[in-house]
Amino acid sequence: MNDKQLVAEYAATQIQDGMLVGLGTGSTANFFIEALARRQAEEGLRVTAVSSSTVSAVKAKSLGLPLVALEQVERIDLYIDGADEVTPDLTLLKGRGYDLVREKLLARAADRFLVLADESKRVGRIGERYPVPVEVMPFAWALVKHRLENLGGKGGLRPTAAGDGLVVTSYGSLVLDMSFGPEWDSWALDEALNATPGVVEHGIFRALASAVLIAVDGKVKEFTGEGA
Amino acid sequence: MNDKQLVAEYAATQIQDGMLVGLGTGSTANFFIEALARRQAEEGLRVTAVSSSTVSAVKAKSLGLPLVALEQVERIDLYIDGADEVTPDLTLLKGRGYDLVREKLLARAADRFLVLADESKRVGRIGERYPVPVEVMPFAWALVKHRLENLGGKGGLRPTAAGDGLVVTSYGSLVLDMSFGPEWDSWALDEALNATPGVVEHGIFRALASAVLIAVDGKVKEFTGEGA
Repeated sequence: MNDKQLVAEYAATQIQDGMLVGLGTGSTANFFIEALARRQAEEGLRVTAVSSSTVSAVKAKSLGLPLVALEQVERIDLYIDGADEVTPDLTLLKGRGYDLVREKLLARAADRFLVLADESKRVGRIGERYPVPVEVMPFAWALVKHRLENLGGKGGLRPTAAGDGLVVTSYGSLVLDMSFGPEWDSWALDEALNATPGVVEHGIFRALASAVLIAVDGKVKEFTGEGA
Repeated sequence: MNDKQLVAEYAATQIQDGMLVGLGTGSTANFFIEALARRQAEEGLRVTAVSSSTVSAVKAKSLGLPLVALEQVERIDLYIDGADEVTPDLTLLKGRGYDLVREKLLARAADRFLVLADESKRVGRIGERYPVPVEVMPFAWALVKHRLENLGGKGGLRPTAAGDGLVVTSYGSLVLDMSFGPEWDSWALDEALNATPGVVEHGIFRALASAVLIAVDGKVKEFTGEGA
């Protein structure tokens, strides 16, 4: 069992009978969905799931997990998802994928948000390794880019993997991948991005994670943060 | 000449040759568009306009004002628009219409933002007279409403005027009209709404207005705010 599977299996043990569980998106989240479906099949665990993306909904459905639509929930018990960067105070960078908004909605709506990670995701500050994904309305991209450049950001619209087009999110937005220097602490950047008109959502998840699960020497450790 | 026309005519005198001007939306903004077109026709004033809505773009085009698309601008010289509420520190409530995001984008991109108002728009705090319009992604409305209710808000989805459907904005969002009590000052509410996932934009315009124009006894007075 690899480290991703280890933390995913551990997360699945946290689910209790009757819970409404938010499903993340990505390779680690997929291991969790599989582990959850196995507990349902083998132990008769009763859960209801709500998905952060169409791809995870398809996977959950194929494994027999009962799903409800995001529109139908007002809160959820537990949300399980990965992250691209994790700081010591449990601020996260997410959004290399295409469903940033649904992920942040579920993180906010959850009583508890467990983050599946590994040692390579730990950073001193958000943006250390990756640019910050910023979802923008198509008509707003030039004004937002100009504004973020004035704040010291560098970057541009995210191209498709083939390089012949621009990435469009599930809500029809474009994505600016913007790098900011160490003069920006994660919280100040979060606030500046929140206050920029035309920004639909961005990849900084502040004060949302309850704990981060990381496999260390074959054992899962739960980090609950310092000063978060 | 009524009070709306008075402030609109005054605003038009602020436009200088070569300026890129943002056009607002609504009855008072319409008077400004007419006054600007008249200056172009009679004085040979050269301006370029960018519009906050399709309806204003149609009006400007019909009057012969040259228009550029929002996507093509990085900043503008002057933005002229109305507001529904104005506080002493020039925080505004806007968004009874359908193009909240474009209005806030132009307000942010403008070197100067002149607000066309009248005495009836002056309030002690935002939300005194009207609920705050909150644009939400369709799949997020229930979660956002629940969250705003937890913050003390009351309200719901905005119905169409005929009452047989829900208002949809130009970006395909729904609108929650939410009232908040006097325990919420405008700035704290602005920040709370900015930080709520699923919120596309909202009607509080903070630290964006340069001056508010109000006709008092047949003369236009320019209010530049206290502590803004």
